[in-house]
Amino acid sequence: MRRSERLIRMTQRLLDRPHQPLSLSELSDSMGAAKSSLSEDVAMIRRVLESDGAGLVDTIQGVGGGVRYRVAVPSGLRSAFVEDMVARLSDSSRVLPGGFLFMSDVLGDPDVLDISGRLFAEAFDAAGVEVVVTVETKGIPLAVATARYLHAPVVVVRREHRVTDGPALSLHYVSGSERRIQTMSVSTRAMPRQARALVVDDFMRAGATARAVMNLLAEFSAEVVGTAVFMSTNKPAAKLVDQFVSLFRLEQLEEGQRVRVGPGDLALPRSVR
Amino acid sequence: MRRSERLIRMTQRLLDRPHQPLSLSELSDSMGAAKSSLSEDVAMIRRVLESDGAGLVDTIQGVGGGVRYRVAVPSGLRSAFVEDMVARLSDSSRVLPGGFLFMSDVLGDPDVLDISGRLFAEAFDAAGVEVVVTVETKGIPLAVATARYLHAPVVVVRREHRVTDGPALSLHYVSGSERRIQTMSVSTRAMPRQARALVVDDFMRAGATARAVMNLLAEFSAEVVGTAVFMSTNKPAAKLVDQFVSLFRLEQLEEGQRVRVGPGDLALPRSVR
Repeated sequence: MRRSERLIRMTQRLLDRPHQPLSLSELSDSMGAAKSSLSEDVAMIRRVLESDGAGLVDTIQGVGGGVRYRVAVPSGLRSAFVEDMVARLSDSSRVLPGGFLFMSDVLGDPDVLDISGRLFAEAFDAAGVEVVVTVETKGIPLAVATARYLHAPVVVVRREHRVTDGPALSLHYVSGSERRIQTMSVSTRAMPRQARALVVDDFMRAGATARAVMNLLAEFSAEVVGTAVFMSTNKPAAKLVDQFVSLFRLEQLEEGQRVRVGPGDLALPRSVR
Repeated sequence: MRRSERLIRMTQRLLDRPHQPLSLSELSDSMGAAKSSLSEDVAMIRRVLESDGAGLVDTIQGVGGGVRYRVAVPSGLRSAFVEDMVARLSDSSRVLPGGFLFMSDVLGDPDVLDISGRLFAEAFDAAGVEVVVTVETKGIPLAVATARYLHAPVVVVRREHRVTDGPALSLHYVSGSERRIQTMSVSTRAMPRQARALVVDDFMRAGATARAVMNLLAEFSAEVVGTAVFMSTNKPAAKLVDQFVSLFRLEQLEEGQRVRVGPGDLALPRSVR
């Protein structure tokens, strides 16, 4: 196999399997190339991706050795995305009764999902995430996009216990916006025990849902490494969860007035956060 | 820029943007290479991906010209996946009351989602899909994984009309398994009109839900190009939708008896379908 073909194949295998170690021995067998040649190829792929800010390539020591691609978002792409979304979301026609912002279109847009997933994954890349947990319904696409780049399973917490989930663990909580008692439940067979969990959701106002998810996960002895939301609100300033990051902030939303959306902490380059 | 670096970058850009045309003029500017050199690079990437069965690279004629990567699943990967899943799903501990099969773990597995999304996208690659429609909750991850490779938005049909969806169109239908009247609704702002729609769901028994989604989409003058489900049941043999494809078939499931799962039509190589 010629070197140029090997570079294409190696780039493809790495990008198709984010956050998964690929064994150099297996690559060497399947490509019919010496490990030393493959190491040079990997070095070049690493150099190109890192100089573009498009990803990292780890070398994993140990039996056989391996390589692993981890996602990163080039700063130009991040800032173009943030600017575009801030404009798209700061649109008074999106205001819904009760102080909600219509985002169903945005949260189904394949580019928004992919780049949001990359940004969430990049932010929690080193946290050893073993499971991505979300609450039905609108957080699911974001959680799936994130889990792809962290190579972790997605577990969906449901509002209602359904037969297809099998036995489930449930709890009650008081929703922040509606001030009424609600239920959430998660399949005991789908949710691993003692896992490092990243909570992903679309929207956070007071943080009552995120807090309830943390309480639910505590029943599985999970360690919550963080909470990442697409949008958080400026008000109330005090949230029920201590640590969370958001891509966007809803700075102002009142019926009949203009909506103002700004960048959240995740919208800034990593170096200045 | 050296050729080897260009090949890595070009492979990355294509794979990161499935089903999206990339302009050769823009690539030529950003890489500082002549279009003729880029065309040679594209030809080599195409040759490698196609010989591996890992994807297609189209050349798009017209102003400026462009290239586009379309996903394909190598036959070895497909058959290993199908074999593994048939074994994993044919497990009597998955039987739930009412003749359901527990699949929540599988439907959150990042590898299962990615390869299922690739297989669905590959099957409907030429259908000009403009929107992927699913019903909450369990179909959403599959729809998101599929939509990534078709570069189409995901629209989620909901069981209940929620405030954050804005105005919605609703209909009633009779569920096949429970024989009771249920409601589904979709945000009128999220769902485009006159779009070519692919319906994706996790499970199909009689097809009442898929049929209801088709009726709902008819209100938007959508053209349903197909229905793709992760698993369909052998019984009842007559479904309420004419055309659907499935990855797996539930051949037998009775409480206290063994479960038998087999490959569906999508599990077979494209050539023999």
